[in-house]
Amino acid sequence: MGYTSFDDTIAAPATIPGTGAITVIRISGPEALAVAGKVVKCKSKSLESSDANSVRYGIVYGEDDSIVDEVLASVFKAPHSYTGEDSVEISCHASSFVASEILRLLCDAGARMAEPGEFTRRAFVNGKMDLAQAEAVADVISSSSSASLKVAMNQLRGGFSSELKEIRKRLLEITSLLELELDFSEEDVEFADRGKLSALLDEVLNHITSLASSFSQGNAIRNGVPVAIVGAVNAGKSTLLNSLLGDDRAIVSDIPGTTRDTVEETMTVDGILFRFIDTAGLRESEDEIEKIGISRSLKILSEAQIVLAVLDSTDSAEANETIINDIVSKIDPAEQFLMVLFNKVDIIAPNTNVILLNNNVSSTNSKVIKLYISAKDGSGLDLLKKQLVLSQKDITLDSDHSIVTNFRHYEALRKAASALEKVRSSVAHGLTPDLLAEDLRDALAHLGSITGEVTPDEVLGQIFERFCIGK
Amino acid sequence: MGYTSFDDTIAAPATIPGTGAITVIRISGPEALAVAGKVVKCKSKSLESSDANSVRYGIVYGEDDSIVDEVLASVFKAPHSYTGEDSVEISCHASSFVASEILRLLCDAGARMAEPGEFTRRAFVNGKMDLAQAEAVADVISSSSSASLKVAMNQLRGGFSSELKEIRKRLLEITSLLELELDFSEEDVEFADRGKLSALLDEVLNHITSLASSFSQGNAIRNGVPVAIVGAVNAGKSTLLNSLLGDDRAIVSDIPGTTRDTVEETMTVDGILFRFIDTAGLRESEDEIEKIGISRSLKILSEAQIVLAVLDSTDSAEANETIINDIVSKIDPAEQFLMVLFNKVDIIAPNTNVILLNNNVSSTNSKVIKLYISAKDGSGLDLLKKQLVLSQKDITLDSDHSIVTNFRHYEALRKAASALEKVRSSVAHGLTPDLLAEDLRDALAHLGSITGEVTPDEVLGQIFERFCIGK
Repeated sequence: MGYTSFDDTIAAPATIPGTGAITVIRISGPEALAVAGKVVKCKSKSLESSDANSVRYGIVYGEDDSIVDEVLASVFKAPHSYTGEDSVEISCHASSFVASEILRLLCDAGARMAEPGEFTRRAFVNGKMDLAQAEAVADVISSSSSASLKVAMNQLRGGFSSELKEIRKRLLEITSLLELELDFSEEDVEFADRGKLSALLDEVLNHITSLASSFSQGNAIRNGVPVAIVGAVNAGKSTLLNSLLGDDRAIVSDIPGTTRDTVEETMTVDGILFRFIDTAGLRESEDEIEKIGISRSLKILSEAQIVLAVLDSTDSAEANETIINDIVSKIDPAEQFLMVLFNKVDIIAPNTNVILLNNNVSSTNSKVIKLYISAKDGSGLDLLKKQLVLSQKDITLDSDHSIVTNFRHYEALRKAASALEKVRSSVAHGLTPDLLAEDLRDALAHLGSITGEVTPDEVLGQIFERFCIGK
Repeated sequence: MGYTSFDDTIAAPATIPGTGAITVIRISGPEALAVAGKVVKCKSKSLESSDANSVRYGIVYGEDDSIVDEVLASVFKAPHSYTGEDSVEISCHASSFVASEILRLLCDAGARMAEPGEFTRRAFVNGKMDLAQAEAVADVISSSSSASLKVAMNQLRGGFSSELKEIRKRLLEITSLLELELDFSEEDVEFADRGKLSALLDEVLNHITSLASSFSQGNAIRNGVPVAIVGAVNAGKSTLLNSLLGDDRAIVSDIPGTTRDTVEETMTVDGILFRFIDTAGLRESEDEIEKIGISRSLKILSEAQIVLAVLDSTDSAEANETIINDIVSKIDPAEQFLMVLFNKVDIIAPNTNVILLNNNVSSTNSKVIKLYISAKDGSGLDLLKKQLVLSQKDITLDSDHSIVTNFRHYEALRKAASALEKVRSSVAHGLTPDLLAEDLRDALAHLGSITGEVTPDEVLGQIFERFCIGK
């Protein structure tokens, strides 16, 4: 811990050269201070002999003694740095020419260009953070809402890791007991209390399953809560989308849909990222191509967490009834929120011809609400936004459990759960301890792969190569 | 000096948020430490009470006590900072969401968003750099060759400013003498030695004129030495350009031409930036539109520092002779380099039908060279590049004089020179000292406007508004 495991020194820009006012170049490794000291010349005390956590002003000279730049260099000493190694961060002017000159001089002085994610990989190998924390670095950088930042930050600060550690600790206790029993198996001794073991297994399994099932929520937090906008053609779906996005002057980004038929837009409301998916209008059709569009709409419908059913209040009650029945038949009332929006109330007074939906949707179902809106003049949209936020109130990040946002973690948790289910079944069937112990070890390995305690190099490579250079 | 003249505290990102691994946020002003200390919470000693030039690890909390980010904060104290004020630089993760959250918290804590160039403007007002140095900051950032960087760095480090200071010092001496004479004018005393005065004026005037005339060179260094590629249609002009650029794997950027007819490409050879302008083929034409293209080519020809005349060696000697005569008649042999390139030597052996140019171009003119090349297979291009570099050997930046790259400086120098010429003429005509003194003061004011000693606010505004935010 704290001692570096690498014998070379790496360098890379940590900001994009050529943009902004300054560029930051990172150097890390056993020779970081010596390498940076050869390139950055300070008055009085040399950079190499600077105190830890100090900022020095210095000059970078080229080969012909011309001045490449005036810079600031921050000095960090092992193990108190990001990587756990001696490190220097050079702030130079934001010219890509200057940055590449300084990088060239650093390489001449003994550094080499860092590979993508290599600084964070070193931080991991040097024990500054575990693998789940290292992965959270990328999540923090890409976070675009306070909810996704909170989840990533909890993971970065080790909240998720310590939860896993606790689970592993309890499993390890059981494993040790079982292995002890195994050693004495010829004597037919049963050390572990099988009843207590089962109870403990259930508890741990529930915890793991609940973590794994937080993934759909975690995925929604990271990529946005999927909200499908469905309804008849001309009910005002696109107007609603534009109105929601435009009103808010929110961060709007275009995610190209998988097909030209769907438009995706994200918007942050009260710190929660929503991903709106506008769908093709629902209607009976004989047209083959239109049928494909409608079947796609239905797929989006089934995958959405929230369904906004947009009805044209000027349409006949029968027509709207048909559409709502159609939508209701396609969603899962236990899992999906349905918000029935009676649109165009600017044209028609409410209660004149709007249908009541008590026959179609249980009024006791807390996951159904009805709203009267006008996508055109914006009335009712504030209420709609409030309802969108309320639907996510279960995303309380103050809960005791972490939220899983990473598919690799989700898979490892599922494999661990499946191994533990085997253990539970073995216990129930009175199998011998050696079989139980093996599955327990499997579960432990899967849990350990999340934090990188038992992660093969190729998996590490896959994780860090997705990082940017300089991270 | 060193004391801040501003009573508010400003903040802005110094790198582009959302790119790279980290984002740096700058804070400067009398409350910089207090503001940053409210946002960044450090263990043990508070950020506010940190030592100057120290880097602190800290945590940024949001309103609901959730963690926004883990950051590093560098503390600088007046007057030892870029702006001359108390300053803090916060390195956070490179998420634009995180950066905007931190900026919002900083503004809640008492800072305000900085305007473009406001940090550098404060550095200027607080006496950390003069105006010419402040302008050099933008030049350093945009420098793309070692030559342009050297010129900008000389200016940033005050080389140009101290040269101007020396000139102003001598002019001030003369002015004082003349003003003394003016005070005693009724007594008809002539203190200043008019002969010595003339000699001194000549000397200073020569210096200013030489600085002003370095502008074309300075402009070439900053924007690239203009190289026109001219010749008959199908002589291989475009192939030559592609071959030069492709061979070098150099930094290539497209500068959109002023017309669709010209293509500009820049390339750095041995640290010198060349700007190649491919022109329409030269030929007699009755076509009106083509005539316009050709007249444009001739304009480019007249503005180029180097003219590459590309001849097709397989064409008849007469045809090539006509083209060369045409080009030679349009260039200034004292100012422009002419490189006659006999192209397509891969097809035809040299000396078979290539014309000799002794009749057209003086062989004693050092600014004319002939080369046999093949744009297609690249032969002769290394030699051509060497000649391009040699043509610029006068750009010796080790000379005693600075090189002017800024049009504002060039204009001020020209105005100062013109005022001094009036002084010289007045001296020659024996005019009264009061007229001399006025023109001298004019010259001094123009010189002073370069370094910002006598620069009106609106000019300052124009200069700094072109900076990026955070600089």
